[in-house]
Amino acid sequence: MANRRFIGVLDSGVGGLHVLDHLHRALPGESTVYLADTARLPYGTKSRRTVLSYARQATRLLLAQQPLKLLVLACNTASAAALHQLQQELPIPVIGTVTATAQAACAKHPKQIAVLATPKTVQWQAYPQVLRQEGFAGNVYQQACPLFVSLVEEGWIDHPVTQAVAQHYLSCVPRETDLVILGCTHYPQLQPLLARLAPHVSTWIDSGEVVAQQVHQLLAQHGDLASSQQPERKYLVTDSPRRFAELANHFLSGNIVDSQVERVNLT
Amino acid sequence: MANRRFIGVLDSGVGGLHVLDHLHRALPGESTVYLADTARLPYGTKSRRTVLSYARQATRLLLAQQPLKLLVLACNTASAAALHQLQQELPIPVIGTVTATAQAACAKHPKQIAVLATPKTVQWQAYPQVLRQEGFAGNVYQQACPLFVSLVEEGWIDHPVTQAVAQHYLSCVPRETDLVILGCTHYPQLQPLLARLAPHVSTWIDSGEVVAQQVHQLLAQHGDLASSQQPERKYLVTDSPRRFAELANHFLSGNIVDSQVERVNLT
Repeated sequence: MANRRFIGVLDSGVGGLHVLDHLHRALPGESTVYLADTARLPYGTKSRRTVLSYARQATRLLLAQQPLKLLVLACNTASAAALHQLQQELPIPVIGTVTATAQAACAKHPKQIAVLATPKTVQWQAYPQVLRQEGFAGNVYQQACPLFVSLVEEGWIDHPVTQAVAQHYLSCVPRETDLVILGCTHYPQLQPLLARLAPHVSTWIDSGEVVAQQVHQLLAQHGDLASSQQPERKYLVTDSPRRFAELANHFLSGNIVDSQVERVNLT
Repeated sequence: MANRRFIGVLDSGVGGLHVLDHLHRALPGESTVYLADTARLPYGTKSRRTVLSYARQATRLLLAQQPLKLLVLACNTASAAALHQLQQELPIPVIGTVTATAQAACAKHPKQIAVLATPKTVQWQAYPQVLRQEGFAGNVYQQACPLFVSLVEEGWIDHPVTQAVAQHYLSCVPRETDLVILGCTHYPQLQPLLARLAPHVSTWIDSGEVVAQQVHQLLAQHGDLASSQQPERKYLVTDSPRRFAELANHFLSGNIVDSQVERVNLT
């Protein structure tokens, strides 16, 4: 097994497990290693410089731990802050949620797009920039949704409070919007609630699904797909494995227990 | 000015500015240095080991930057995780919000106490333990309020959503409770709303006020009060000074601008 190469998946916390779950389903023969920088989460409120530095440190640690064939930045804020730099610096392909999701949105040929994301992803204009690069010429509305992550982690998925918060955020999205990008990996859990509140939206783009498709395509192009009967699944965290394992089970189909999670040190 | 000694104040973010503000009012002649570990906030959801390690690193940096006469842990989670260790390790007095606040609560001789705090402060039983040590024999109820910090930082102080969340948290507090400890430095901003929702509570304990009194008392006892006409006020942060300065003005009476805030590196 010395030559086994892993898909590395990086996030600040548990949200990226949503992407990982889609990867496991789309690529069941691949070994994966997931690193959650839980000692320094969230990334979504921190500066670009800080998030880039964290993503670099985390990537260095991942590469030192396992031979990687590909790296996924499974956090929209980390993708927005670090994708291009890491693509230049690393000897392996790097896929980020923002670019993959923006490309998938453009392929649907919507009239108007709304992006729901963390404060920093919005402030840095991450989605509008990539949507323009991908040739989208319509209006792009952005709405920072800083309370959604806490509400999802509380498990208040269909709670009246979450409904009121969602209504507030969606009130800033024009009614002509036909496509919404869920620009944070925590948000797909709220999609049923959001879809109920905004029935005029015909398409919701979920980065988990999109990234898994893009990884599959890229590995197939390179003739690098694995079909192991016993793929390995490793979980690394920078804070308590227990809290991570508890929360993880909201995001992952197969349950994990804290003994499967290894604590590593980044600071 | 080479011999000027500062009061050091440590928090993960802006919440501790509430304590600092009370210190400035109670001790206008003292120079203060405030360190916000904004690159790694919040502390309130992280493990004891991680918070202790962060508090140690932050304290080391503060001591290297300025001569300190006293250190205040102006974050309940940091106090709960690190007070005793730092009191043993440092050559200066260390005051933590949890102990100071619990002592002030006991002095009011309440029948029943409820503690509203962050998930970790609650999980570690920080307040119940200190209240017992201080001789309180009545019931102590605890309620983790993980959404309050985000709501306060959004500025949703009297928003219907905050009211609904507060109602949810207070519903776990028995009606016989006559004293509530606001066990996180963000919560005093919500006191008017909370008091309206729980009119049977006669006393609300705010750690900002209490800590300022205790610092005053301690310095007076040691004959170490300063009465400078031009005290210095320094602000250090581990992430963007700009975001800190913006948020700071919700917590501090006198406005600060980002040029007054210096970025330092802890990682």
